[in-house]
Amino acid sequence: MANNPAQDVAQARSDGKVHLLLAASGSVATIKIPNIIRGLSRHPNLSIRLVLTSSAAHFLQGQADEQPSLADIRSYPNVDAIYTDESEWVQPWTRGAPILHIELRKSLTLVLIAPLSANTLAKMVHGITDSLLSSTILAWDTDGFVDGKKKKILVATAMNTAMFRNPITQRNLKLLNELMGGADGWVEELQTISKGLACGDVGQGAMATWETIVAAIEDKLGLAAKDSGDDE
Amino acid sequence: MANNPAQDVAQARSDGKVHLLLAASGSVATIKIPNIIRGLSRHPNLSIRLVLTSSAAHFLQGQADEQPSLADIRSYPNVDAIYTDESEWVQPWTRGAPILHIELRKSLTLVLIAPLSANTLAKMVHGITDSLLSSTILAWDTDGFVDGKKKKILVATAMNTAMFRNPITQRNLKLLNELMGGADGWVEELQTISKGLACGDVGQGAMATWETIVAAIEDKLGLAAKDSGDDE
Amino acid sequence: MANNPAQDVAQARSDGKVHLLLAASGSVATIKIPNIIRGLSRHPNLSIRLVLTSSAAHFLQGQADEQPSLADIRSYPNVDAIYTDESEWVQPWTRGAPILHIELRKSLTLVLIAPLSANTLAKMVHGITDSLLSSTILAWDTDGFVDGKKKKILVATAMNTAMFRNPITQRNLKLLNELMGGADGWVEELQTISKGLACGDVGQGAMATWETIVAAIEDKLGLAAKDSGDDE
Ligand SMILES: Cc1cc2nc3c(=O)[nH]c(=O)nc-3n(C[C@H](O)[C@H](O)[C@H](O)COP(=O)(O)O)c2cc1C
Ligand SMILES: Cc1cc2nc3c(=O)[nH]c(=O)nc-3n(C[C@H](O)[C@H](O)[C@H](O)COP(=O)(O)O)c2cc1C
Ligand SMILES: Cc1cc2nc3c(=O)[nH]c(=O)nc-3n(C[C@H](O)[C@H](O)[C@H](O)COP(=O)(O)O)c2cc1C
Repeated sequence: MANNPAQDVAQARSDGKVHLLLAASGSVATIKIPNIIRGLSRHPNLSIRLVLTSSAAHFLQGQADEQPSLADIRSYPNVDAIYTDESEWVQPWTRGAPILHIELRKSLTLVLIAPLSANTLAKMVHGITDSLLSSTILAWDTDGFVDGKKKKILVATAMNTAMFRNPITQRNLKLLNELMGGADGWVEELQTISKGLACGDVGQGAMATWETIVAAIEDKLGLAAKDSGDDE
Repeated sequence: MANNPAQDVAQARSDGKVHLLLAASGSVATIKIPNIIRGLSRHPNLSIRLVLTSSAAHFLQGQADEQPSLADIRSYPNVDAIYTDESEWVQPWTRGAPILHIELRKSLTLVLIAPLSANTLAKMVHGITDSLLSSTILAWDTDGFVDGKKKKILVATAMNTAMFRNPITQRNLKLLNELMGGADGWVEELQTISKGLACGDVGQGAMATWETIVAAIEDKLGLAAKDSGDDE
Repeated sequence: MANNPAQDVAQARSDGKVHLLLAASGSVATIKIPNIIRGLSRHPNLSIRLVLTSSAAHFLQGQADEQPSLADIRSYPNVDAIYTDESEWVQPWTRGAPILHIELRKSLTLVLIAPLSANTLAKMVHGITDSLLSSTILAWDTDGFVDGKKKKILVATAMNTAMFRNPITQRNLKLLNELMGGADGWVEELQTISKGLACGDVGQGAMATWETIVAAIEDKLGLAAKDSGDDE
């Protein structure tokens, strides 16, 4: 199973679960991933696959209580797999073999990228796909033409105030909303909030709270209604 | 020779041959490279240098009959060198030493990128040059001002239907044709075709057939006419 | 100290010195870095921190007299630290820990990127931040809102004539000046000059001379006036 991530995802498609791709790129807010997963643990029918960029993985190495290792997170409820960039190339590809970023797109009902770094944002809007996460995003079925249903990507940007206020970042956020967002779009932004940041600066750029993110996931997946009253 | 790729290319400039740079980026269609090379083997006066991105190299590791290793391909007729990103930095550069991506641009009559991945397409139109292939493309003498003759880059895009249909990819293809293509341009696109893709999806996005690609190369290099009737 | 670069930078903020970030990306003109540093050695109150991209580091390995190793350069007057991409991740980050590219932005009075490669230029204008240098640039306090004073980034582009003349590069230079330059901007370009280039081509694209660069730094930092007559 661990030997062929793409085949594993393909098989999971028929497991009767609701499939969420939770992704993190290299912001300090990656340390909220455990909270998000635990916040979703009351939904027994949810399957979570976690994708981390190499930068994001730096934040989850077990260096503090609130920063468990990936091995620890793998044992959390609902977590069915954790992927890094290497996962795409685990098995030398031959004709007919499934491709991880394609199988992810087919299997998943929703992608949530929290945090979305300034860098991964820039790669999204310009079409650079040099990581598993950026490849999955560009392979998205943006209008439902390929898989028959239109599915969403939610993003929660998170960065230092100066990086957030930089006109280059603002231009990329504008491109995100113009090219991929809006009524016909497939990307929805969970706005940043204003607070004291990890870097000591104060201001706009902090990621939406994990509670907001959990609520947004539940809303999109119709989980809250279905499982409310659930005591797991 | 293998110790100084840039010098090797500089020397080959006077070997009386027609020089083709065949490049592949990280699409499944990289497995058509052997067919393209064999399809050109009837032209004895052709010298082929192959450039692979690191992703493309994954597809040619000898994992199947149709996917020979790079060592195997090196022994095919007309193949005079195979370069990967490391080739640029093999020798610590000192003043006066030749530079691989510059020597390639000077020596080559034509570059054919087949397949062109969504990622390398994005890097081309945005000017990102973090690989030997993308550096060679940006160092191209786009109007013949530097080397005295205007030379072309042919590209054969290849990707999953959803990736191809994504508005971000379509925007990059439009930029490619607007900024680098057209009558005054230096890049020509060999359109994708519609068929069952390696990933199981059906639709637009597949690379032009290798026969089409071979014919396009022969046409641009004036090979078909010159060598027709050749019995090699 | 070497164990926590971000903390080291934070502490240096109160050392009473003028702080310059000197950065080099992967152009041959990186070999002018030693000249620039020596050209500034008559200013005893100047602290220089050097940032190199991985490509730039290839040019300073001690392979020639004019290309000393980084260890040699570390011992030059005024050089207080040398950073590469790994420097950001030396210590596993935990809440409250300083972040190198943020501390650099806070501590520095001026950034000078010489040479600025075509690739790092493209990443700057598109917001790609996959290196310490590009992260520092995007985290810049572009209008002084965050740190209370507006500070400049000077860039000295350097590339092969064909790469420089390429419409894609010209488009990126235009974006640089439109988006980040001008009277309200925070980036100033030191124009390339025309001469015989390291690659054998002749034409526009060479980096401004190191004397020009040293003079520009002195001017921006108000050093020339203050230290003129100084006999160090
Ligand atoms: C300690 C630390 C904290 C960082 N925090 C952020 C952040 O909050 N937001 C952001 O956009 N980048 C942040 N960065 C910079 C990114 O990690 C860097 O741009 C990286 O290349 C992003 O890669 P990715 O988008 O592939 O994950 C941080 C870097 C470090 C070293
Ligand atoms: C098995 C496999 C097949 C892939 N096929 C394609 C493809 O056909 N087209 C494409 O644009 N990307 C494809 N990708 C994604 C690219 O390999 C990825 O975006 C990579 O970073 C491209 O790098 P390059 O442009 O430097 O070669 C594939 C990835 C994998 C793992
Ligand atoms: C010997 C050599 C010399 C190079 N000189 C230049 C140059 O002068 N300008 C440039 O833009 N790129 C030049 N390049 C290409 C860059 O090194 C390459 O695009 C690299 O990815 C830049 O990375 P960076 O921007 O992260 O430093 C050179 C490459 C080599 C191998």
